[in-house]
Amino acid sequence: MAKDKKLVEAITSMDVDFAQWYTDVVKKAELIDYSSVKGCMVIKPAGYAIWENIQKELDFRFKETGVENVYMPMFIPESLLEKEDHVEGFAPEVAWVTYGGLEPLQERLCVRPTSETLFCDFYSREIQSYRDLPKLYNQWCSVVRWEKTTRPFLRSREFLWQEGHTAHATAEEAEERTEMMLNLYADFCEEVLAMPVIRGQKTDKEKFAGAEATYTIEALMHDGKALQSGTSHNFGSGFAKAFEIQYSDKENKLQYVHQTSWGLTTRLIGAIIMVHGDDNGLVLPPRIAPVQVMIVPVQQQKEGVLEKAYELKNVLSNYKVKVDDSDKSPGWKFSESEMRGIPVRVEIGPRDIAENQAVLVRRDTHEKMTVSLDELNEKVGELLNTIQSDMLARARAHRDAHTYEAVDMDSFVKTVEEKPGFVKAMWCGSQECEDKIKELTGATSRCMPFKQDHLSDTCVCCGKPAVKMVYWGRAY
Amino acid sequence: MAKDKKLVEAITSMDVDFAQWYTDVVKKAELIDYSSVKGCMVIKPAGYAIWENIQKELDFRFKETGVENVYMPMFIPESLLEKEDHVEGFAPEVAWVTYGGLEPLQERLCVRPTSETLFCDFYSREIQSYRDLPKLYNQWCSVVRWEKTTRPFLRSREFLWQEGHTAHATAEEAEERTEMMLNLYADFCEEVLAMPVIRGQKTDKEKFAGAEATYTIEALMHDGKALQSGTSHNFGSGFAKAFEIQYSDKENKLQYVHQTSWGLTTRLIGAIIMVHGDDNGLVLPPRIAPVQVMIVPVQQQKEGVLEKAYELKNVLSNYKVKVDDSDKSPGWKFSESEMRGIPVRVEIGPRDIAENQAVLVRRDTHEKMTVSLDELNEKVGELLNTIQSDMLARARAHRDAHTYEAVDMDSFVKTVEEKPGFVKAMWCGSQECEDKIKELTGATSRCMPFKQDHLSDTCVCCGKPAVKMVYWGRAY
Repeated sequence: MAKDKKLVEAITSMDVDFAQWYTDVVKKAELIDYSSVKGCMVIKPAGYAIWENIQKELDFRFKETGVENVYMPMFIPESLLEKEDHVEGFAPEVAWVTYGGLEPLQERLCVRPTSETLFCDFYSREIQSYRDLPKLYNQWCSVVRWEKTTRPFLRSREFLWQEGHTAHATAEEAEERTEMMLNLYADFCEEVLAMPVIRGQKTDKEKFAGAEATYTIEALMHDGKALQSGTSHNFGSGFAKAFEIQYSDKENKLQYVHQTSWGLTTRLIGAIIMVHGDDNGLVLPPRIAPVQVMIVPVQQQKEGVLEKAYELKNVLSNYKVKVDDSDKSPGWKFSESEMRGIPVRVEIGPRDIAENQAVLVRRDTHEKMTVSLDELNEKVGELLNTIQSDMLARARAHRDAHTYEAVDMDSFVKTVEEKPGFVKAMWCGSQECEDKIKELTGATSRCMPFKQDHLSDTCVCCGKPAVKMVYWGRAY
Repeated sequence: MAKDKKLVEAITSMDVDFAQWYTDVVKKAELIDYSSVKGCMVIKPAGYAIWENIQKELDFRFKETGVENVYMPMFIPESLLEKEDHVEGFAPEVAWVTYGGLEPLQERLCVRPTSETLFCDFYSREIQSYRDLPKLYNQWCSVVRWEKTTRPFLRSREFLWQEGHTAHATAEEAEERTEMMLNLYADFCEEVLAMPVIRGQKTDKEKFAGAEATYTIEALMHDGKALQSGTSHNFGSGFAKAFEIQYSDKENKLQYVHQTSWGLTTRLIGAIIMVHGDDNGLVLPPRIAPVQVMIVPVQQQKEGVLEKAYELKNVLSNYKVKVDDSDKSPGWKFSESEMRGIPVRVEIGPRDIAENQAVLVRRDTHEKMTVSLDELNEKVGELLNTIQSDMLARARAHRDAHTYEAVDMDSFVKTVEEKPGFVKAMWCGSQECEDKIKELTGATSRCMPFKQDHLSDTCVCCGKPAVKMVYWGRAY
């Protein structure tokens, strides 16, 4: 069986070549396929189902805070895109439509790289009175950025995301919403993806063009590199002034609105892979896994085995369960289920049936345990909860063990070189020091965490008085 | 209050100008807004929530039949698009990307008008053995067709849809899937949208380029025009031959796969409007309504009224309920709730509270009834069910009352001119007669229904022996 053969050829070990290990996992766990369009990927069922679960969970959380979904056009006229400063950041990387059918367009349209300008144009017509505020809109869509080098999920020319765009009467409300969504993202990552994140603010250098403040969640991958996993921007009234988005307040005076935007992408699937995966493939946290339990019948040709497997599927109907009744050997099925990251495997064979038991195997630790079938439902439920919390604890321990401190440049440089991870260090607030640190180490400022530590009084780079403690790191 | 004022200016009556009535409803029920991109619309929360409900219900039904979701790139290289005949149908109406960032592309990319070619390209790599079959993939996405004239939901340059693409080992399986999906669409329209449809097959002239057979569901709008509401295509192995999609069967012989595709779009929202709407606005079937019950407090400034309204919201927590606690008058709120098509309105004021009752008002019939608060939950549930089935019955009665028969061309022409609706007539099977009928009447063959009647032995147009009974009509 050609397919099985490919599967069990061991994938590259992450210690040997982390990048190749990543590529092997996305392919062999059948998350994506490459397409005929350079830099664009096909997201296969196993990958898309993870995204559907992310969508479902996030969408629910958004709506709990009053957010409503809308859909904006995928095209932005060039003149509209140019209306705001932040176009300069995007112009070199947008795809341009120049023909509609057989005729050249009078004005070029870009395929949205992000939709601030469309939302602003819409809000300028939609908002007249304080009664129309706040607007709490979000859309799920795909966006295009013409990247030179691409990697599945991490950087592709087209990717899927959600983009929230809100408009508020006051600066305070906008700030509150910006922080609320950042915390919503962080809680989601920790509770559902078992992925601990640092919550903080981007420096001026790293913030989104056009934003007054950009907040970010930063996660640490298994190789010690950082991954920006979600951002939330406070735009103040900059866009409102450029697009004339004004409302009449209760005293009938015209005021500019205050806006936010916040987004999270399929990149997060890359993060799940690189935070939890191991040399046997993907490891999915139970709360995001499209299949939580795989039942593998052993000696399935023997009478009663397959029937028992289906019966157990019914017993476990509270969970997302599949029976692998294909004609592959149990060994193949074990590897396959591991490659795909399914949290719990249930093995059931004639001897187990005779003894009214089954074997449970954890994907994350490979630990095996024998349980009575009378307790199966309860034990599987407990095990899924345990795996979820253990995965978070393990990822947090890894992150903490790879978070270092530096109070002078020598130790900073040495740490980045020798110990992949986050480096916490004090900073004077100047872009010169950020640039210099990047030049010397390749590390960038990831964020100024909300939880500040005081490591010393002076900037790690220039020795001048420090204003913030910053997380630094090499990043994806 | 500017907004209220706009709302209660009566909309155009559908009898006066149906097209204007439609435009008024989509705007005033706040389903869409026009955008800065000609032919592209902004789908607003009230419109998008309908689409979300359609997605949720259809997606569930798809998955019950084994379908899995994927995501394909939005771009198709020109060379790939040209690989199959059906490109000729799409070439005049695709949008072309010619620049990526600042550089011209070596090969133009079109924004997908539909994704047959991408799925085929993918399947040609993905399918090797009979073990890989069937493939039952679907995607939810937006597609672009550069239409000259556009109307919200009915015909726009970008629209949202789902496209299913399946590959099977045998012709029988492909045919079975094609019919299964058509019936799934039809059942969905009738059960959820309260919209009766004719199920049938397109003539060769009207079928999808590249398909062996196209099945369709056709609905009748309130103005007597037909709307094609969903299609399902059997491709046979035509695409498989063009794209070399072969599998080795159990005897290890290479065979071409047999394929299907099927799609349904945001056009369906236009159908809901035109089947159920009235001169007060939108009328939504309860099973698709984003808000099923609107509670309107009367004299809400009086003590206890708002509290009671919120209390009733909790009592009705099985349904999708909102309380309109804005500072508008009850009259405005009634009109607004009607314009938005909310199936049931609950009115509650001080006198109602004193008498432990509330007034229920049906959106579809405007019927009022007083119910005891002790029975409110039960009565609202019953009423929603009654409205759902009454709406289907009423739409069916309207459709049937506007379905005519013709056995000669004189009566055919007269019927189409004078009685908007479907005309059933026998047909010889030649495209000449289809062309002639279109020329004489503007009516096209909508479908050859699965349920055939025998009206006469001869073609309504040429008098030669008839082979099929056909539904004809002017269409959107």
